[in-house]
Amino acid sequence: MAGFVQELTARQEAVDHAVSSLAVPWRIESEPISTALAGGRRLADDVLCPEVLPPFDRSTRDGYAIVSGDCYGASTSNPAFMAISGEVPMGVIPAFSVRPGECAAIHTGGILPAGADAVVMAENAERAGKWVEVRKPVQRGENIVFRGEEFSAGSILLDRGAMIDYRTVGILSNAGVSTVRVINLKVGVISSGDEIVPCETEKLLPGQFRDVNSSILSRLLSSHGYEPRCYGIAADSYDSLEGLFRRALEECNVVLISGGSSVSSRDHTSELLESLTDPGLLVRGVLMSPGKPTLIAGLKRQQRLVIGLPGHPFSCFLAAYNVALPLIHSIHTGIPVAPWRTAFLQAAEPVFGHTGIEEFTPFFLREGRVAPLPTKSSFVKTLAKADGLIRLPVSRETARAGEEVEAWLW
Amino acid sequence: MAGFVQELTARQEAVDHAVSSLAVPWRIESEPISTALAGGRRLADDVLCPEVLPPFDRSTRDGYAIVSGDCYGASTSNPAFMAISGEVPMGVIPAFSVRPGECAAIHTGGILPAGADAVVMAENAERAGKWVEVRKPVQRGENIVFRGEEFSAGSILLDRGAMIDYRTVGILSNAGVSTVRVINLKVGVISSGDEIVPCETEKLLPGQFRDVNSSILSRLLSSHGYEPRCYGIAADSYDSLEGLFRRALEECNVVLISGGSSVSSRDHTSELLESLTDPGLLVRGVLMSPGKPTLIAGLKRQQRLVIGLPGHPFSCFLAAYNVALPLIHSIHTGIPVAPWRTAFLQAAEPVFGHTGIEEFTPFFLREGRVAPLPTKSSFVKTLAKADGLIRLPVSRETARAGEEVEAWLW
Repeated sequence: MAGFVQELTARQEAVDHAVSSLAVPWRIESEPISTALAGGRRLADDVLCPEVLPPFDRSTRDGYAIVSGDCYGASTSNPAFMAISGEVPMGVIPAFSVRPGECAAIHTGGILPAGADAVVMAENAERAGKWVEVRKPVQRGENIVFRGEEFSAGSILLDRGAMIDYRTVGILSNAGVSTVRVINLKVGVISSGDEIVPCETEKLLPGQFRDVNSSILSRLLSSHGYEPRCYGIAADSYDSLEGLFRRALEECNVVLISGGSSVSSRDHTSELLESLTDPGLLVRGVLMSPGKPTLIAGLKRQQRLVIGLPGHPFSCFLAAYNVALPLIHSIHTGIPVAPWRTAFLQAAEPVFGHTGIEEFTPFFLREGRVAPLPTKSSFVKTLAKADGLIRLPVSRETARAGEEVEAWLW
Repeated sequence: MAGFVQELTARQEAVDHAVSSLAVPWRIESEPISTALAGGRRLADDVLCPEVLPPFDRSTRDGYAIVSGDCYGASTSNPAFMAISGEVPMGVIPAFSVRPGECAAIHTGGILPAGADAVVMAENAERAGKWVEVRKPVQRGENIVFRGEEFSAGSILLDRGAMIDYRTVGILSNAGVSTVRVINLKVGVISSGDEIVPCETEKLLPGQFRDVNSSILSRLLSSHGYEPRCYGIAADSYDSLEGLFRRALEECNVVLISGGSSVSSRDHTSELLESLTDPGLLVRGVLMSPGKPTLIAGLKRQQRLVIGLPGHPFSCFLAAYNVALPLIHSIHTGIPVAPWRTAFLQAAEPVFGHTGIEEFTPFFLREGRVAPLPTKSSFVKTLAKADGLIRLPVSRETARAGEEVEAWLW
């Protein structure tokens, strides 16, 4: 590991350097798919709105469509009275219009009758026979969504790279976009080290470890809209690693190699990445803890990204999360979008760190505050409980209880 | 909607009432599946650890295994010196032991040699020939994970109901659990209203709306580990709704009906839920905004949960998120676990509300603070940007900029 220390690059700088060296975005294979089946996938292109939305001025409330000027200054003690000119039926353009002094009963989503320019909510009005008593003024446009206010025809509904999930799918359904083109971005995952055995191994021999890194990386990638492909475990020799690597490089856009624990297995990964050209090895070690021995390499003409991840599960996960995921996003969009969301939160307990290096500690939310989680004994146990990562920047040492810290939320 | 107002139940009370009335947990269909393919699914049972983990005392760092007492008081100016007795090879039990005054080179994951009780990190030591200079004291157990410290044999790895994702899968892989039993909890989704048309509809007639609710609900359910089944759109008649409902009730554990905009379509849903017995309708309206016209019903002997959701997309989503999801969790675990995580965050802008009702506003994180999002014109657009929901409790009116608010993060 000593070799890394002289050359550590700050994390953001490392990511930016890779992005600018690799002439991203690249051409990524994509396929059309029904929007209903596109959950968990990422858009290959910007999706444009095929129509004006909404197509008519509409009420956003149950109530009465009126001419707003009519109820100026209305109150409970001094209500305005309007004559009901009709009720807007759902699903058709109203055949009547509303003139000053008149109103029309309307439901949420109903098309605004000609003449009306606002809707009084039902709870601020009372009907008595042919009259409605309005007890609160409304401004022009209140409780209405105007034609084209949501989307104009041809405007961007969702950007390239956006993931289809419960938050975004409604935008597509609302606009009648029933097919989208999504990317098939393939990420090869290789583990290395003689001590690593497949997860399915029932009985461990002394000193063996099951391959948790491949298992966590696969789910991390698929839950972020990429297609993981596991190439197994390389034995502790250059040839074994190179064999798996060449196959993965042939078939995938990205290759992640998580390093073994022995110095020689780390050396094989580093030797392999050093052997690449155009531009080849770009970053040799990142100034963060854990995760220092992270390597970034790329092949510009062949459009391939290769990342050497540390072997310890926390270090491996962290480098995959905060270096690999943003870089993978950049290869199909040009921009290294981060998977986390940043919030400033109060620490429930002190968070220990050192200046001179960016440090990450998993945390969980306890009564709305950030409580750091120990990572010492078992990272897999910690990760299952974690709500995100506390980031202590290079310049920050310990954060005391009650102080604000930067929290990255999954 | 007027009918609801007299009977609104506080949200938590509504959920608790349903849980205690329905004799949950119920028997839910389940199937065995390879852990590698179980991403996004929920465990049918507690998963127990089949072995002691780790099986040996292990180093968590690269460095030197020592007898901790040997380096008491060591510092850069006053280092302790140890004789190297060997190097721990990866993947086997070391054949030698460490005696006082000795040390052994060890890598992360290496098995601790007999006699040693701590590991000095490589950066706090320097090797010179057959000697190692230690510049920092270590406590007993430092940089070591003891046998059984992660999990004892038979202890719970993950609880029933836990979702398999990148955060939890490592726990299973680490313990060699290669098959798990996951639930097939089916949720029927029905939309209602003459104005609602399938999402695939290319050209809308005046007043028509595409069925965004079914589309959002389906993805919300599947991303929370449940199996959505869409039964289409009921026309504005009791018979049409009842027909779809009976089929869904036959085939699913839960049925969600999102209401139409017209009063009559709402009335059909409410009439339908009122017709159920054992115990039938449990909650008629929830004291929250939006989402008031939410209905909860259940069939205890048949083990079915039925929820009437409001028709407006925001109201529908909110009631699905904060009423339906916790209740669905309870039917297979007995406990209404919420899908959100709560944090107390500073508001970047004022959040407007009213006392007397629990209110929810979508927000996004802007420079680490909570910025409320407008929901007026288009909820689908808002949802795509939102990082969660601000909750203003019944007793809280407006929150000013800079004040702390309760934020629910997805």
